[in-house]
This record gives sequence, C-alpha cells and structure tokens, in this order.
Amino acid sequence: MATQANGNVRVFSLGGIGEIGKNMYVIESEQDMIVIDAGLMFPEDDMLGIDIVIPDISYLTQNKEKLRGIFLTHGHEDHIGALTYILRQVHVPVYGTKLTLGIVESYVKEKGLRKKPDFRVVHDNSVIQTGQLKTSFFRTNHSIPDSVGMVVQTPEGIVVHTGDFKFDQTPVDGQYTSLDKLTEIGKKGVLCLLSDSINAEVPGVSPSEAIAGNGIMDIFLENEGRIVITTFATNIHRIQQVIQAAEESGRKIAVNGQAMEKTIEISRRLGYLEVEDDIFITTDQVEDMDPRKVAILCTGSQGEPVSALMNMAKGEDDNLTIEEGDMVIIAANPVAGNEKTVSQTIDFLYQIGAEVVMGENVHSSGHARQEELKMMLNLVKPKYFIPVHGEYRMQFVHGELAEETGMDPNNIFLLDKGEVVEFSKGKAVKAGKVPAGNVLIDGLGIGDVGNIVLRDRRLLSEDGILVVVVTLSKKTGTIASGPDIISRGFVYVRESEELMEKAHKKVTETLEKSISDNVSEWSTLKSSIRDSMSRFLYEKTKRRPMILPIIMEI
Amino acid sequence: MATQANGNVRVFSLGGIGEIGKNMYVIESEQDMIVIDAGLMFPEDDMLGIDIVIPDISYLTQNKEKLRGIFLTHGHEDHIGALTYILRQVHVPVYGTKLTLGIVESYVKEKGLRKKPDFRVVHDNSVIQTGQLKTSFFRTNHSIPDSVGMVVQTPEGIVVHTGDFKFDQTPVDGQYTSLDKLTEIGKKGVLCLLSDSINAEVPGVSPSEAIAGNGIMDIFLENEGRIVITTFATNIHRIQQVIQAAEESGRKIAVNGQAMEKTIEISRRLGYLEVEDDIFITTDQVEDMDPRKVAILCTGSQGEPVSALMNMAKGEDDNLTIEEGDMVIIAANPVAGNEKTVSQTIDFLYQIGAEVVMGENVHSSGHARQEELKMMLNLVKPKYFIPVHGEYRMQFVHGELAEETGMDPNNIFLLDKGEVVEFSKGKAVKAGKVPAGNVLIDGLGIGDVGNIVLRDRRLLSEDGILVVVVTLSKKTGTIASGPDIISRGFVYVRESEELMEKAHKKVTETLEKSISDNVSEWSTLKSSIRDSMSRFLYEKTKRRPMILPIIMEI
Repeated sequence: MATQANGNVRVFSLGGIGEIGKNMYVIESEQDMIVIDAGLMFPEDDMLGIDIVIPDISYLTQNKEKLRGIFLTHGHEDHIGALTYILRQVHVPVYGTKLTLGIVESYVKEKGLRKKPDFRVVHDNSVIQTGQLKTSFFRTNHSIPDSVGMVVQTPEGIVVHTGDFKFDQTPVDGQYTSLDKLTEIGKKGVLCLLSDSINAEVPGVSPSEAIAGNGIMDIFLENEGRIVITTFATNIHRIQQVIQAAEESGRKIAVNGQAMEKTIEISRRLGYLEVEDDIFITTDQVEDMDPRKVAILCTGSQGEPVSALMNMAKGEDDNLTIEEGDMVIIAANPVAGNEKTVSQTIDFLYQIGAEVVMGENVHSSGHARQEELKMMLNLVKPKYFIPVHGEYRMQFVHGELAEETGMDPNNIFLLDKGEVVEFSKGKAVKAGKVPAGNVLIDGLGIGDVGNIVLRDRRLLSEDGILVVVVTLSKKTGTIASGPDIISRGFVYVRESEELMEKAHKKVTETLEKSISDNVSEWSTLKSSIRDSMSRFLYEKTKRRPMILPIIMEI
Repeated sequence: MATQANGNVRVFSLGGIGEIGKNMYVIESEQDMIVIDAGLMFPEDDMLGIDIVIPDISYLTQNKEKLRGIFLTHGHEDHIGALTYILRQVHVPVYGTKLTLGIVESYVKEKGLRKKPDFRVVHDNSVIQTGQLKTSFFRTNHSIPDSVGMVVQTPEGIVVHTGDFKFDQTPVDGQYTSLDKLTEIGKKGVLCLLSDSINAEVPGVSPSEAIAGNGIMDIFLENEGRIVITTFATNIHRIQQVIQAAEESGRKIAVNGQAMEKTIEISRRLGYLEVEDDIFITTDQVEDMDPRKVAILCTGSQGEPVSALMNMAKGEDDNLTIEEGDMVIIAANPVAGNEKTVSQTIDFLYQIGAEVVMGENVHSSGHARQEELKMMLNLVKPKYFIPVHGEYRMQFVHGELAEETGMDPNNIFLLDKGEVVEFSKGKAVKAGKVPAGNVLIDGLGIGDVGNIVLRDRRLLSEDGILVVVVTLSKKTGTIASGPDIISRGFVYVRESEELMEKAHKKVTETLEKSISDNVSEWSTLKSSIRDSMSRFLYEKTKRRPMILPIIMEI
C-alpha cells in the first residue's frame, strides 16, 4: 500500500470512479485528511440478495487519526447513503448544508447510530479549517437544492471538487452555480479540478429545470382529467414546480409514497419548499373529488415493482387506483439498468388506458453536458484534471473535452478507484494504490457476503438445491435411516415422482457401494454422493442443482 | 374456451402480442387452421434459471386434426425458436423460404427430433392450398434475407400478415419489399391486416441497411489499426457489407463465435452470401498479420458476458486479445433489457484502450417506422387491423397511426394473447379467448418449472438456505443425532461461528420443548423449527433464508 510521505498532497477516490454511485473522494496532506461524500450504490444484477453496496473504507479506518471530517456535496443517496455505515467505524465531524444534513438526519433516525453524530451545518460562505486543509464552498445547480462544490486549500495548492452540477440559467430557486466564485478561484490558480463526468458523452447544454416545469404546467392546465405525476423523491425543485402547476390549475395534491412524503416533510420544515398547507389532501380524499381538481404526486419513477405508482396501477393501493383516462407524467429518466422496468410500467399503464407522458418535456437532468463541462474547465483553469463521477468511458470523454479546452493531456488523470495522484512541488504523479472496492450489505451484515455466498446464491437461483440426508450406524457402519431426498427450486416434485424415485435408487446404490468398499471418510462419501447425483440429474434433466449431502451418525 | 362455430374465420395470437418475442399467430376457418411463426422469447429477470420461453400451444394440440401447417416468415429466433419444441407435439408440414428452413434445420440438428420434420421450401411466388385456406407470399426487407409476409385467402376474405418488415429503397441484396404485390392485394380488397408494431413509436423512416454499410466501409478504409466488428449473428446483409468493406480495404476476416460461424456457413451454402474463399482467415492466423490487414467479425453485440467479444476483451480467448488501439464496431442496438450489459462492455473496451463506435452510423433497424407503417396500411387498405409484434403501447400507437390513415377506430383491434377476433359475413367481433401463455423451458424440462419452483429459486437467490436435520429415536422419542445445521448462500460460515452456535442452541431448545410437550406430528415439529429459526435469524441478521427442517427417524 502506498503511504503518505514528505510534504505532499494526495488525491484519490474510494468510489464513484469507473462506476455510477458510491461517490467518495479523499484529499490528504501530510498531517490531515478529509473525505468528500460518502455514497452508496445499488447492487449489480449478479449481487444476489444484496441490499446496497458501500465503499471499502479500510484506508480511512487505518488512518483514523488524520481524518478531520466528511464533507457532503448534496443529499442524494449516491453521495450520502453510506454515511451511517461509515460513522460506525470513524467518528468524525460531518459537514453539509442545511438540507443535506436534514436528509442525512432522517437516515440516521432510520438506521440508528450508537454515538450521536457530530453534524456541522455549513453554507456557501463557510470556511472550515481542518489542520493543513481549508475548505470553502460554492453553490451548484443540481436536481436537489442546497448542493455545493468544494474548494480545498492544501499545502500544494487549491483542489476544486465540483460535486454534481450544471449551469442552469433559470433555476427554480433563483440560486445559480456561483460563476463569480468560480471565476475568482480560477484567477487565484487551481492545482487540480475534480469534475462530474456523468453527462460527458452528451453534447450541448443541459436544459434548464424550468423547461421541465413549463412542460408540467402545460399538462396541468390543459388536461381535463386526473393527473398522476412521479419523479425522483428528492427532486425538490421538480416538486416545487408541480406544486406551482397545481396552484395555477386549481388542483389539490395527494402525495403517495413514503420517500416522497419524507422529503416533502424535511424540505418544508427546513424552508426549501414554498407551499400553502391547503394545497395538500390525503389519498383517501381523492375519490370524492372532481378529477380535474386533483393531482397525485407519487414515487415509482424508476418502474420499481413495489412503489406507489405500480400499486395504484395494479389496484393494490388502499385508496387510489389508476384508471382509464388518467394522465400519468413520468418526470424522470430511467437510471441505467432500469430501462426495462420503466418500459414495462409504461406498458402496464397503457393497458389500463392511461395516457403516459415522459421525456425532455417534463424532465431535465441535473448534470452538466459537454459545453457546460468545458465552461467549468475554462472558469477554474486547473493545472491538473481528474474526471470523476462516472463510468470509465465518461471519464475518458471528459478527458477529451479537457484537451479541447487546451489542457495538456499529460496533466489529465483517468484514475481507477484507489489510484493515488500525488502532488509535490507543483508536480503531479501517479503514486500507487490504496485499498478500494465494494463492501456488500445484506440486512444487518456488512461485508460478510463474499464471493462464496454469492456463488452459492447464483447456483441456487439457477437450478435450486437437492439435499440428500442419511443416518449411518456407528456400530454396524450401515444405513440406519434414509437416504431421504428433499429438493427446492429444482423440479415441481409432484410432476417428477418418477425422477425422484430413480434418484433415490441411485443414491442408495452409491451409498451401499461405498459402505461395502469400506469408505469411512465422510468427505469421500459425500463427494461420491455429489458426483453420482450430479451426473444422474444432469443426464436426465440437463440441470445442475446444488447437491448437499448430509450424513448423520448414531 | 371459445370454439369455432359456423362458417366463420378466427384470427388470434398465441404469442408476440403485448411482448417482444415468441411470435405465433393462428388463422382458423371452420375446417382448417394454419399457424404463422413459432418463436421463442428470452426469460424475464424473475424467471430464474429458465433458458427460454415458448408459447402455450394447448389450443393447437387440442385441435391437431385441423392444423394444416406452420408457415414461417423468416429465420429469427423470435419467429422460429420454438419450432423444435412444437413439432414434438404436433407433426405438421412446415413452410418457409430456403434460408429460413436452412436455419431451422440447424436447430433441429442441435436439439434432435424423433420424427423427421416435414419441411417444404416456398418462394415468394408459391401458393399453398391447405383446405379452405390458400396462402401466398410477398418479399419483405428485414435484417435477415429471404423474409416474407403472407397473404391468406380465407372463406371470409384475405388476411395479410406482414411478418417483420421495412421499406428499404437501397437493399443490400437488391430485393425490395414487394410494393407491386402489396398494391395488387390492396386493390383486391383485404379483410384484415396484421402488421409489425415494434417501431411504431419511432417517427420517420427506418434508414436503409446501406447506410450502416457505408458507415462500416468508411471505418474500414480510414482506420489504420485492427478492426473488431460485432453484429447480430443472423444479420447476413450486415455480414455481406462487412465482407465488402474488407475486400475494398484489403483486409482479411477472422470469424469468431459459434453462432456467427454457423450462419455464415448456412448462408454461403445456400447462396445468400457472396464471398470469395480467400477473404477468410482463421483466428490463429491473426497474430502474425499486419493489423491494417485484418478485421475480426464476432458475436457479442448484446454485451453477453460469455461471447467472443468479451472473451477477447478479457484475454480469455485462445487466439485473440483486444488491445489498445483496436477499433471495435458494435453494429447493433441493445435489445430491451440489455442496455446495461452493452454499456458495461463498452466501458470495459475503453479501459483496454480500444476505440468504440456504435449507433446509427453503423447499424440500422430491420423494422418499419411510423411513415412506413402508414404506407403499409395505405397500400393494403384493410377493412380491419390488428397491430401485432410488440408491447402493448407499440400496438396502441400503431392503432393511432392506422386512425391517422383514415381507418375507423372500431375496426382496429388491440388484442391480448389468446384473444380471438372472429370474422363472419364481413363483420369482425371479439369472440372470447383461447389459452395462451408462457411455457418455461429449463434444460430438458418443458413447462415443469412453475410458480412454486420459481418462488423457491427467488427465495434461495436472496438469502440462501439453512437446512436443519435431526434424527429422532422411534423408541424413546428423543434426539438420536443432531440437530445439525448446514447453510448455503446465507452467511460466510467461518465469520459467523457465533451466530451458528446460537442458532444451534435455539433449534435444540425448540426441539426439546416440542418433545417434552409430546408433539408427535412431524409437520408441527417442522413448523416450530421453521418459525423459531426464521424469527431468530431475522432478528440477528435481517435476512430471511429458506429454512428447511428435515427429520429422520430410527
């Protein structure tokens, strides 16, 4: 493992590079270290049964004494979702804006933490000195309010991390990405920029959030029936615009879905949502109302099979059912991997007879596109550049964009997780790797599901399991009871009696032969059961269930 | 179940409606019945361990005596892939063009059939009289040569099925969708049209296959390194264009991937690919050649983790490895549900340092878009219209397109699988439903994996299994051996010794209590083990493994 030496400054990522999710970046000087973001990632398809994935933070726990704090850019799960797990291992101050910490607090309430966390609210003019590192902030436009980027003054120079951003010229809350601060920072001279790469492949400029708002407003005004609208639960700007559209069109809003209710509660309490009390109705009031006077704001924008939207569509919601003639607005894009479930949801809604609207008229991304990314580079004018937050090809294209702005290709670092860039006397070099990887969380278990457990789950999911149990007599060495065969997830037993009978015969033969051959090692006995059953079943069914032989002794 | 009455004609789908895949359509008169296509579908994510899905054909087996033949439109799996399974249950003539039957034959060779199939080659001027039904054909442009649509003369009038089609004005093989025949049919008067809906949501006209060919040619001519190109294995037009590009640019082609080799062999043998022998080299010859003189044509266009492309990328291919500087052309679009694997493949290639090209420059769809779909409607001028081949919303939009061409909305039928449209004296009505659904195939098992097996596989995949075995003494009623606990896919046992010890204690207590309570019913004993273990483990881990209690007796 590379360790810190001399008066250098090191920058690396423990997550968020080469992937979408679990963002976590580290800036380390000789004496001090800070972390930017602590996000989670949702499991890949082959991580069976896993709830969430968080970064491996062994470098942080091993260097606890240097860690001065965790700085959060904004309140999205891929930036804050690992925090409750990480605070169990390192108890350090957590810095974030009011809304970000408000959301984090609701996580802490859900998950519970033994030690009270040390939350410290910052605003865009805060300056936090932690030893050799001094952190200040600049506002960014993103799909959640109170987002910031960070400017970290290190002994080697200024490191800027954009957080998630775009340049919205007509932001809903009137808060712009701080062009003035960025200009000023750029003038001072920046050592290194870390910038959001997720839309690096998309040309042009990301449409303003206001465009989505206008699209929604038009539908609210023109539609003559009931409206159902779903978006990301944390997209408070979008929710604000839905409220505005409801006010203008004389509709009341029924909120459906826990996550949505939660963010509305938090953002109202903290002053991030302007709304009159009387705009909201409860879901059981909807039925009695004129459909033209109602909108239902709900979760389910990613086609999640269990969500308010799908429950209403399937008639499984207690109070609300989506009906023929309803207008359903999906004010979101499918996140990578969710394309099919979203498309199935739309299909389901069409079958009910609902009208469905989706796309750029009612949604805009919170991430900068190519022209904005180049503008960020031109404003900050960094000497070195590390594209972050995205899959490798996004980092790659972001690197090309940087070259277009005139950067020296040698000063652009396309890193892997854990790869360290070390700055020394104004020069940057790659300097080894710190441990970085996935920690899988399943239920209360943290990191206890490894390759063996996953391999077994995969095997079990494909062809099920066949358990063979036999009791042997210690005295006589013969079969005292069994063999019994029990299967799950393999074949439908009632229709496969013949197969199971033959399997029983086969395993009995194998056992008897082993006993008469004086095989006394159980492991040998077990593997001959496993082999003969496996071969027999594959021949008969072309399936390979897991074979689990169990030998008891009396 | 609806049955056939009077002199009517009935049209319905056993698959391919409300879904993408397993196309199968039935046209039935009083005395005769024909089937158009017999396709498979790939399993949904929740169909764990399932290899393929085919239509439920119980209506066909119950009405075998009327079934006169299966007519195939073209050689894609979603149109022919179920045939080998269906011929085991109904032995009837199979009609198809030369290439289509050539591909079908290779399936039969792979899967084996007891009875020699009765294949009958047709061409676009064939006319097949099967009792009251007379079928003729028209050529279509699609992403495989020798595709046809069908014109079925029934006692009630003409039914037209387009098959998969587009109108390509510059087709690679010079074969156009037969505008002249369609015009002629339209003039005669068509009772009902069944038309391909898959691109009904896409405006405009589908770009010609030649556009993709030009894009590929440009890259072959301009690129100064090695080229790797992947496309659908059956896209013989595309393969023809790759061969042409190789010839023009002085490159040799190494084919990598079984499916690709198979279709090239079949289409060469049957005369659907014009190619000189000496264009091909073997994969082990590539290494010694000038990279500018080589192209590798391979499978893997859908990001399949085990494919020639991924094997080469991962360094797991015996002869070929994708290297920095290679140009990889993905001449295909991700099929719905494959977006993420394709994107991961691209990312992997970028990390190697390969250049990747994808999109409309090097790929064009084989399916008609909105303007072409309307043209088909305008040419055929059907009285009734059934949009087929697509998810419900595609059928829906296709229905709207038909209305735009002036069709009476009452004459457009948006059907579900199995829903029958009955034509009688020139009038059409919905007339009940025949059985239609999914038959799941896992290994050699056909339809034997039902809900229970799938539910068990799902449970096993999420949190694994915990087997509790105990041997009880018949005489004393006490524990003779055990309880033993074995788990798979639940926790990593070496790290969970404490938990397993506690579980062991818990289950022993439960057993002893039951025994002292004189519980003699095994089912009661088992359910108390299941309940206490389940509760205990959920409390400790928040996981719910399947608990499988096994009681032996001596």
